[in-house]
Order: sequence, then C-alpha cells, then structure tokens
Amino acid sequence: MSVLVVGSVAYDGIETPRGKVDRVLGGAGSYIALAASHFTTVRLVAIVGDDFAPEDEAVLRRRNIDLEGLERASGKTFFWQGVYSRNMNERRTLVTDLNVFADFRPRLPESYRDIPLILLGNIQPSLQQSVVDQATNRGFVAGDTMNYWIEGTPEELAQTIRGWDAILINDEEARQLSGEDGLRAAAQAIQAMGPTSVVIKRGEHGAALFQDDNCFLVPAYPLADITDPTGAGDAFAGGFMGWLDRCAGDRLADPSAWQRELRRAVVYGSIMGSFCCEQFGVDGLRDLTMERIEARFREFQALTAY
Amino acid sequence: MSVLVVGSVAYDGIETPRGKVDRVLGGAGSYIALAASHFTTVRLVAIVGDDFAPEDEAVLRRRNIDLEGLERASGKTFFWQGVYSRNMNERRTLVTDLNVFADFRPRLPESYRDIPLILLGNIQPSLQQSVVDQATNRGFVAGDTMNYWIEGTPEELAQTIRGWDAILINDEEARQLSGEDGLRAAAQAIQAMGPTSVVIKRGEHGAALFQDDNCFLVPAYPLADITDPTGAGDAFAGGFMGWLDRCAGDRLADPSAWQRELRRAVVYGSIMGSFCCEQFGVDGLRDLTMERIEARFREFQALTAY
Repeated sequence: MSVLVVGSVAYDGIETPRGKVDRVLGGAGSYIALAASHFTTVRLVAIVGDDFAPEDEAVLRRRNIDLEGLERASGKTFFWQGVYSRNMNERRTLVTDLNVFADFRPRLPESYRDIPLILLGNIQPSLQQSVVDQATNRGFVAGDTMNYWIEGTPEELAQTIRGWDAILINDEEARQLSGEDGLRAAAQAIQAMGPTSVVIKRGEHGAALFQDDNCFLVPAYPLADITDPTGAGDAFAGGFMGWLDRCAGDRLADPSAWQRELRRAVVYGSIMGSFCCEQFGVDGLRDLTMERIEARFREFQALTAY
Repeated sequence: MSVLVVGSVAYDGIETPRGKVDRVLGGAGSYIALAASHFTTVRLVAIVGDDFAPEDEAVLRRRNIDLEGLERASGKTFFWQGVYSRNMNERRTLVTDLNVFADFRPRLPESYRDIPLILLGNIQPSLQQSVVDQATNRGFVAGDTMNYWIEGTPEELAQTIRGWDAILINDEEARQLSGEDGLRAAAQAIQAMGPTSVVIKRGEHGAALFQDDNCFLVPAYPLADITDPTGAGDAFAGGFMGWLDRCAGDRLADPSAWQRELRRAVVYGSIMGSFCCEQFGVDGLRDLTMERIEARFREFQALTAY
C-alpha cells in the first residue's frame, strides 16, 4: 500500500539554543513524507520553486518518496524562519515567505487517485478538501490544522474536518477548536465535528487518542537533549499514518484489531517525533533505519510497562 | 505489615473554582494516611491541638489508622488556607498558622519503632530525620519535601535525603533540588544525593519513576472534572507506599519483582491522587473502597495498553 500526503515543501531558517541553520529542507510535507517513508511508500503532493535544489530533491528520492505530485513552479520555494525560546516551548516566527506556495492548487496525478490512506498536512482547509475531492477510493482520511485556520477560516475548516476519519492536533489547538478546557471534553466536542479519532499531541507530555468512546494515553519518549523541535508534530503524523498503512490491510474491517493498531500508530508517531527533535531540520528522519525505530519502540515498551 | 507515616494533621480552608470550604480535615499526614489505609495498616505520627474535633479523629479511626502516635498538645491545630486559580494549576496561600505544629517533635511509640516501611511527609528535614533515627528496623524509607526546605535549609535537607531509599517530589521541585532542567538529568542528580528511586509527580501530566538506571513513565488518570487538587501529591505518596507495603513481603529481596511493584506503586499513587481531586479535602479518600481502586487500576490499564 501507500500513503497520499499533501503539505508544504519549504526551506527553513531555524535558530534554537543548540544552534542555527540558515536554509534547510523543511515544510510539513517533507517531515510527514520522510517520517512515513520508513513504514510505507509515500506519494507526495506539494509545490516548489525553481530554486529547489537537486540535493534536497535527492533527500526525498532516496527515501523512495514518489514525487510525481511535486509541482515545480517558476519563482521561489516557500521560506520560513523562526527562533526558539531557551526551553524550546515557544517559538517566534521571523519570516514567512509563501512564494510559489501562495498559488498552490494541489493536483493529484492519475496514479495517486485510488490511494485509500490520505494524510492532509497543515495547509488551507479548502486545499485539503480539494485533495480529498480528487481521491476516488477514500479509506481513511487524517488531517492536521493549526490556530491560523481555526481563527481565520472556521467555517471552511469545519466543512473540511467533517469528512475526516482522524484529526491530529496539539492540545492548545484542540482547546481552541473545541472551546473546551479539559482534554476529554475537547476531544468529544471535536469528534462531534466529524472525525471519530482525535489524536492530541502534547509535546513533552505525550499524546492522547480518543477513538469513539475509547481513550488511550501515552507519555512522551524522554529525550535527554532536544536539538530542534521543528517538524516534530509532522513527523508524529507521518509515523502515525505510516504505521497504519503498513499494518492496515484488511484490519481496517476488524474494529478491535484496528483499535490496537491505532494505539500503536500513536506510539510510532511519538517515536518519530522524538527522532525528529534530536537533529536539526529533517536530519533526524532521513538517515534513520527501521531497526532503530523498532529498537526505540521496544525501549518505549520497557519504559511504559507495569 | 504496616506503614509508619509522619506528617501534618491540619485544618484547611480551601477555595477552588468548584466551591469553598472553611475548615476541613487536612494536612499531608491525613491525606497520606487515608490513602495508604486502603492498602495496609497505617501508624501515624503527628500533632494536633485541643480543638481537634472527635468527628475528625473518627474519620481517621474508621480507616483503621493507628493514632497512638498522634500527640495532643494544648493550643490550636495547624491551620492552612489557600485559593486556587481558574485552571487550578496555581494556588495562593492566604493563611499558614503553624500553631501547635511549631513545637512538634515527633516521638515514636514503642509499637511503631520496628516498622520497616517509613513514609516521611513534607515537614522540616530535621524532624523527618528524627523519625528515621528512632526507627530500629528500617527497610524502605521514602520522603517528600518542597521548595520551602530546598531553599531554606538545603544542607539539612541534603543530610536527611542521603538516607532515603525513595524521594517523591513534583517536577518543579525536582528541577530546583537538582539544578537540572531535563527530567532525566534532574533525577540522576537527585539519585546521586542518596535515594535510588526518584518519583516525580507531574500532576495532569502523569508521573515518572527513576530507579537506578531504570525509567518508568506513566500518564495521569484523565479526570473529567477536578474539584479540589489539595493533597493529591500526598494521596499519591500514600497510595505508592501503601501498595509497596501490601505486596512487599519478601519481594524486597527480589530486584525484578521489586522493580515491577515499584512501577505498580506509581500507578496506584496516580490513582489515589485522582480520587483525591474528585472531592473537597479528604472526602475523595475516606469513603473509597478497594473495589473502586482496583476498578480504576483496570481502567487505567485499558487506557495505557498498546
């Protein structure tokens, strides 16, 4: 199987207390695709400018990511620059140059249309919807969003979310989207908007999955040192969806097996987020092996068993 | 077996967004003793004034708590009053009247001296030490402390902690005591001070146990609604130590069985903390049954299994 991913492919300038990079491969689409690529084949829908370097394209290709859906437009690639606070719990955006991304209209190549698992990275809700509309064989649609869309285009977002099977957001966004303070109340309110599965990413505090009436809680993998948290949430989403695709098959039809795999998907998501934070940009994701991922999964089991 | 507990027995005035009580049974010793009493017999060392009401004594007696070590002094019982913020993550102390507690010198009755499991509630480090000094058959000593002692009497605290097997503190206190930001680094620094087991209570974010090189992480039980967080950390400590005593026996000698029970003790601690938060003061702990505790343990297992 394979996962259809839509999201930004960008250049990032990042400063954290651990160092600084001026211009590295980034964007939700890159992080998601690289994370998911360790579990399954990824077909990526995104846009880059004519400044997009062959060596960055090679980073994606080496992970066997299908780039037929990567549009090349004349102009510059999306650029973002930000700086993190001392404890890295906050970040300040210095530059957001949408560039060619401003006119992005996702177009699915013919070969992408019948992919059942679709992961919608954090872009404008109407663009997320247009991807779903072009898909002909929807099996499981998961999406991410952010405060910018929750505040700016709430009706458009509500309409888009209605068709999702799962939403992956952080706890602050869950509170904002639902208007509820408590995690469980927030999740229930969001479930009422459409997605039966609500995954709430809580950074260093772990993650929660609410699936129908069912709740699953998991702590975060304890990193000794965080180098760069950029993309950790996207890496989570990529690991989550990658695992689901890897083990899905006919389990989509068996509710109890599906529930178990959803929980494991949250754990693999957490693990991919942890690898992401260990290095700058996408470096923590691209040189990874499934052996190291599985070793960390077993380590995580040992950390949480009782 | 039984657990020897030292701590304050007090009257509390508490205001939370859910309501207000003017004067209810409180103090770390009460919370610890009531929580632990569901698992084992508790022998309590504490002091009260001559205003300590028979009905409050009866609350402790009904839970079969041994009060031979409860000293009655002429004067008033320790009184504390505080008010919680809207999200209950912060609280402001309005009144602290030490009263008879100011001259508390813990004295162990003869029948308490050979108890191997000792839980030192958060009182002045030298008083905690004096309890340990009077014990003749120390098996496992666990203690709590707080920022007041970390800042005010650091050498006295360091000397006391040196003899502990386990310390139970919250994450802020762990950072302060160790001077380390990261949880793992903080735990290692504290282990170097003496206790081989460091339990870090993280409130709504769960708990962590560092035991020798071994780490265990657990999320918090997700409460739909918090009524009053007062005493939750003490209830945690009581559940933790109560479980260890209930299942300890000769497992103290088998490292792998002991490690497993320490982890379960953290889960039972979390569960007792959750019950504590559901009602004002000690109400959530006193009318509890082991059936409800075990039901919540199973529910917790279902919430965290993958």
